[in-house]
Amino acid sequence: MPKAAASPAPKIERADGEDGRVRAVIDAVLPSVDGGRFPVKRVAGEALRVQAHCFADGHDVLRVLLRWRAEADADWAELPMKPLGNDVWEAEFAPPAVGRYRYTVTAWVDAFESWRHDMARRIDPEDIRIASQMGAQEIAAAAGRAKGADAQALARWSSELKTAAIENSMEAPALKALALDEPLCALAERYPDRRLATHHGAELPLVADRERARFSTWYELFPRSTAPKGDRHGTFKDVEARLPAIAAMGFDVLYFPPIHPIGRIQRKGKNNTLAAQPGDVGSPWAIGAEEGGHKSILPELGTREDFQHLRAEAQRHGLEIALDIAFQCAPDHPYVKAHPSWFRWRPDGTVQYAENPPKKYQDIYPFNFETEDWQGLWTELKSVFEHWIDEGVKIFRVDNPHTKAFPFWEWAITELKREHPDVLFLAEAFTRPKVMHRLAKLGFSQSYTYFTWRNTKQELTEYFTELSQGLGSEYFRPNVWPNTPDILHERLQGGETAVFMARLVLAGTLAASYGIYGPAFELRVHLPREQGSEEYLDSEKYQLRHWNHDDPQSLAPFIARVNHIRRENPALHSDRGLRFFSIDNGELLAYAKRSADGDNVIVTVVNLDPHNVQTGWLELDLDFIDCEPAHPFQMHDLLSNQRFLWQGSRHFIRLDPHSVPAHVFVVRRRVRDERDFDYFL
Amino acid sequence: MPKAAASPAPKIERADGEDGRVRAVIDAVLPSVDGGRFPVKRVAGEALRVQAHCFADGHDVLRVLLRWRAEADADWAELPMKPLGNDVWEAEFAPPAVGRYRYTVTAWVDAFESWRHDMARRIDPEDIRIASQMGAQEIAAAAGRAKGADAQALARWSSELKTAAIENSMEAPALKALALDEPLCALAERYPDRRLATHHGAELPLVADRERARFSTWYELFPRSTAPKGDRHGTFKDVEARLPAIAAMGFDVLYFPPIHPIGRIQRKGKNNTLAAQPGDVGSPWAIGAEEGGHKSILPELGTREDFQHLRAEAQRHGLEIALDIAFQCAPDHPYVKAHPSWFRWRPDGTVQYAENPPKKYQDIYPFNFETEDWQGLWTELKSVFEHWIDEGVKIFRVDNPHTKAFPFWEWAITELKREHPDVLFLAEAFTRPKVMHRLAKLGFSQSYTYFTWRNTKQELTEYFTELSQGLGSEYFRPNVWPNTPDILHERLQGGETAVFMARLVLAGTLAASYGIYGPAFELRVHLPREQGSEEYLDSEKYQLRHWNHDDPQSLAPFIARVNHIRRENPALHSDRGLRFFSIDNGELLAYAKRSADGDNVIVTVVNLDPHNVQTGWLELDLDFIDCEPAHPFQMHDLLSNQRFLWQGSRHFIRLDPHSVPAHVFVVRRRVRDERDFDYFL
Repeated sequence: MPKAAASPAPKIERADGEDGRVRAVIDAVLPSVDGGRFPVKRVAGEALRVQAHCFADGHDVLRVLLRWRAEADADWAELPMKPLGNDVWEAEFAPPAVGRYRYTVTAWVDAFESWRHDMARRIDPEDIRIASQMGAQEIAAAAGRAKGADAQALARWSSELKTAAIENSMEAPALKALALDEPLCALAERYPDRRLATHHGAELPLVADRERARFSTWYELFPRSTAPKGDRHGTFKDVEARLPAIAAMGFDVLYFPPIHPIGRIQRKGKNNTLAAQPGDVGSPWAIGAEEGGHKSILPELGTREDFQHLRAEAQRHGLEIALDIAFQCAPDHPYVKAHPSWFRWRPDGTVQYAENPPKKYQDIYPFNFETEDWQGLWTELKSVFEHWIDEGVKIFRVDNPHTKAFPFWEWAITELKREHPDVLFLAEAFTRPKVMHRLAKLGFSQSYTYFTWRNTKQELTEYFTELSQGLGSEYFRPNVWPNTPDILHERLQGGETAVFMARLVLAGTLAASYGIYGPAFELRVHLPREQGSEEYLDSEKYQLRHWNHDDPQSLAPFIARVNHIRRENPALHSDRGLRFFSIDNGELLAYAKRSADGDNVIVTVVNLDPHNVQTGWLELDLDFIDCEPAHPFQMHDLLSNQRFLWQGSRHFIRLDPHSVPAHVFVVRRRVRDERDFDYFL
Repeated sequence: MPKAAASPAPKIERADGEDGRVRAVIDAVLPSVDGGRFPVKRVAGEALRVQAHCFADGHDVLRVLLRWRAEADADWAELPMKPLGNDVWEAEFAPPAVGRYRYTVTAWVDAFESWRHDMARRIDPEDIRIASQMGAQEIAAAAGRAKGADAQALARWSSELKTAAIENSMEAPALKALALDEPLCALAERYPDRRLATHHGAELPLVADRERARFSTWYELFPRSTAPKGDRHGTFKDVEARLPAIAAMGFDVLYFPPIHPIGRIQRKGKNNTLAAQPGDVGSPWAIGAEEGGHKSILPELGTREDFQHLRAEAQRHGLEIALDIAFQCAPDHPYVKAHPSWFRWRPDGTVQYAENPPKKYQDIYPFNFETEDWQGLWTELKSVFEHWIDEGVKIFRVDNPHTKAFPFWEWAITELKREHPDVLFLAEAFTRPKVMHRLAKLGFSQSYTYFTWRNTKQELTEYFTELSQGLGSEYFRPNVWPNTPDILHERLQGGETAVFMARLVLAGTLAASYGIYGPAFELRVHLPREQGSEEYLDSEKYQLRHWNHDDPQSLAPFIARVNHIRRENPALHSDRGLRFFSIDNGELLAYAKRSADGDNVIVTVVNLDPHNVQTGWLELDLDFIDCEPAHPFQMHDLLSNQRFLWQGSRHFIRLDPHSVPAHVFVVRRRVRDERDFDYFL
């Protein structure tokens, strides 16, 4: 290159602060939640598929790497991303253990690969000779970046190529072959020039939870209603007696409403009446009395040792205990005297109780998150979780998190999971969509949903399409409940067995995590407090109940069947891979779920009408269920244990609500074994 | 509030660095391009509607403000955002002049408004008395933030309210009325406590361009082919003679391919042959010769003074001149000797020409954007624009920007617009979608599109739905061309008048900016260089052409009609407000455009079949065109000047390609004047 007079280089600042010669563009890295402000969620061992939109000017060859690391590590692991076309590059990694990770992307215009790409298409001998000399320069540069034997091999190759090109000592085809030597090219590839690499601006966070964050089956009960008969207050010992039955139904999380001392001041009576009668047990959510607060146990339930015994017994039955954490105080909670600054005070010298004028909740004092002592308050609230974590509890159902300051949750959950990455939090926020999503972004592992109020074909289709495929699917893990102690949906109030069965099948096959409030659910309790109310009549929230577990109409065996199917079929362990199918009847809902590896496919059809037999033509998406139009396949109904031989996409369905209002098919594809026998796997 | 022993407050850091008591959440601010990395685009005076997703814990009342400022100003203007429901808040502002702006959102939990909201719903007299005292505290605090008479008025109100509540000297209803006094509440509202306000993390950028960035009508011609007859090289003077005709067709931008000296080394001959013959004029895109480079004018076209004269004459005809800037050099461009480091050099001592092996473009030297002297290169390239801006040119069509380093464009356009905010850049990047979008993000004011290759009903519907409603609509302004010197689409090669007319109507009514390469378009030039090629036969790119402007078949009058309709109808001045309508014929395409204020609605129906009469039933969306089902309205076809009286949504359409293959209706709604006469406006 000829020399020219040097002109003084003006100083130029790029908008992104990079060197001006950095040419690769990383336009997007996905998934990302609010540009990396919040983490995406996976479970340990589950692959995160990352896509990056990368390109450069002209037709030079790009190299793109996915980089990831555990947040605590300084070193990045790197893997090449592959182009899918349309400037989308993809790679995936699986976080090996629970914890927080970071991932990002780097890309550069690769001089060696660009040269190699062009070289492969050169025809003219003179071009090949000149290009060989240019390649020799790139290879020599790679040799300079390499060490040891690699450096020597590259230097030798560079020198041979250059000499042969300059001395014209090889025919062009041989020279080209030397330039494109595959093993040597692969070697050079290992020492790229990354000085002008583009780094994506954000190191995107990922939280890897344990498997139960993604797949869990919850059973809620009030321990105080577990006494075997009569009006006696149930105890942790009584709960132990229920464990075999609950485990037999196939649940893996046993969740209790608050187990703390219950306030006496302003205690609510039966059916939420204002004046409690002597003997009324009050609401477990009116937390705190002279016996203690959020770190104490209601003496009537038992001692700390009883709780530990129950926890160990539950574990023996494959049941993990989840506690309800409700950050609010009864007027006699010890906090009120010990930390008056954590509450709002009225000019009459009383504490401001919860209210939504003209409604008053005088039995509940909310915390004041604008207190000057917010750091003291946050620290104490976090220590409530820490107390129970020390007691061996790793799952918390958080009551109304949306009525506590949002920043508290981000801080508390992040801090708690730093020490205890296997702890899980379920957000009980039945509120507006953006608020529910924010809580999930802030760190809640699972979230209650609107499922309880989604009953029609269109409602369910739209809602679960959004949950499984919408933007929120990267961080919002639904946990769906056909009923809760607060919600006896109108749909259940008819008491039809078919409704309870259909809602259970929907919950268990549409969502990877679901729960029921029992025994109200399996015993089909369905009377509301009054017409138009979603409250249960004689709700356990305000009184003891006695349940007849020997009711021959109990749905326990059916629940056990559904939960067994869930356990056996990986397709049902994730909210991804859901697809609705067309079926020409508005009362029939059909969908499939497919496991990440595609090996397990479950097709569910539910009759939403509890009164009438419904029939319709189902249109399968054969691609989605991975069946060939030309080959028969077996549809094995895991509820009835019937097997159907099907071929093609169109099939007749008939579901009678008076027997079982659903099919839950596993698709068994035909395989041929070494003896040339066909069977269905 | 009782005092308790102070415990040492632990130090807590929030993830976003805010004070722990800051409770309002701003989850999103829209529109935003890549989280504020790139600006959204509007024109001066055009409203930007901003939405924010805001909420707080509990049911306290939020106040949300939109803040905006010119980038050069330090002070923010603020306006209240209104809740639309679903936690979405909205406000809009119109940038008053061209330039760069910033906008963001702030929100806080407002203690005074929360108190007022609750107060309005209080019934119990004792509650009202206590709440009045609490309100008096909030009002006193507002008085402390106010000044002068406002402070006095608030202090007086606070004191009266407190006294009346404590002394029980007023009935509860009167006390409540005093607490809710509207003018005083409005006064207190003006002095909110914003100490715990949340500020959105990003100050989002906005570029306000002049109107022509959004709405423009381009005519491209080769000045050298404007000689009135024979083979003489056309001049700027000859172009002047064409101005009245071009203006009469209704164009407002007159765009020339490069007007610089053309290289002699490796010059291409007619029809892109490798060996130029004596007298061959070469390609205007092979820029630079001994006469000069990118800042010089080809002597055959005229002098700098001739150019200035032409520019002034064009302006007199309402035509603004746009120049083509192609950053590449012919081998004899002065840069090659003056700045050898700006090019890649081959081992044989020659400059690396453009190539895509095995194809070679030996007449073109690309710049090396990885040069050590990148700052010198960037500065010089920017100075090319500056030179022509100094010559009065404010619109540049940039040739193949995607083959130059992307960061250069962001820097150059931002810097140029800082000095000259009225300059516009059109990106000629016929490449992959993400690359085209990146260029638009980086600052190009308008972008060439795939329109040239979108011909069927489905193609056009999908593409223009994406362009007008997709994510890109905030920054990507399409400029659509039925033909260019590089693209004679197969569809035009039949030469049918109906095809040319239909493509013109589609371009002019689907997009706010469009252009044609003339006179080839209005004279329906349609022969390709060879079968299967999109190149014109005897293309002006490589030779002089002579055009017969007196051809009685010329589409000039039809073009004039379409452009007149565009000018008169604001609905066609923006890419927003496009809606496709159902019509039951695959060859008929129907759509409406509506102005931002809704006053002007254009309904277009095009017959895409150039051979056959097509008929179909059109289904109007009456809401969209703002007509009542019960009232007739007039459809005035501005192409034929026929008027039709319609009522309801369903109408029969018949379009004959042998007359005019389109309707362009303006919707005239019935109004009643003061004499009770009905007419259509």
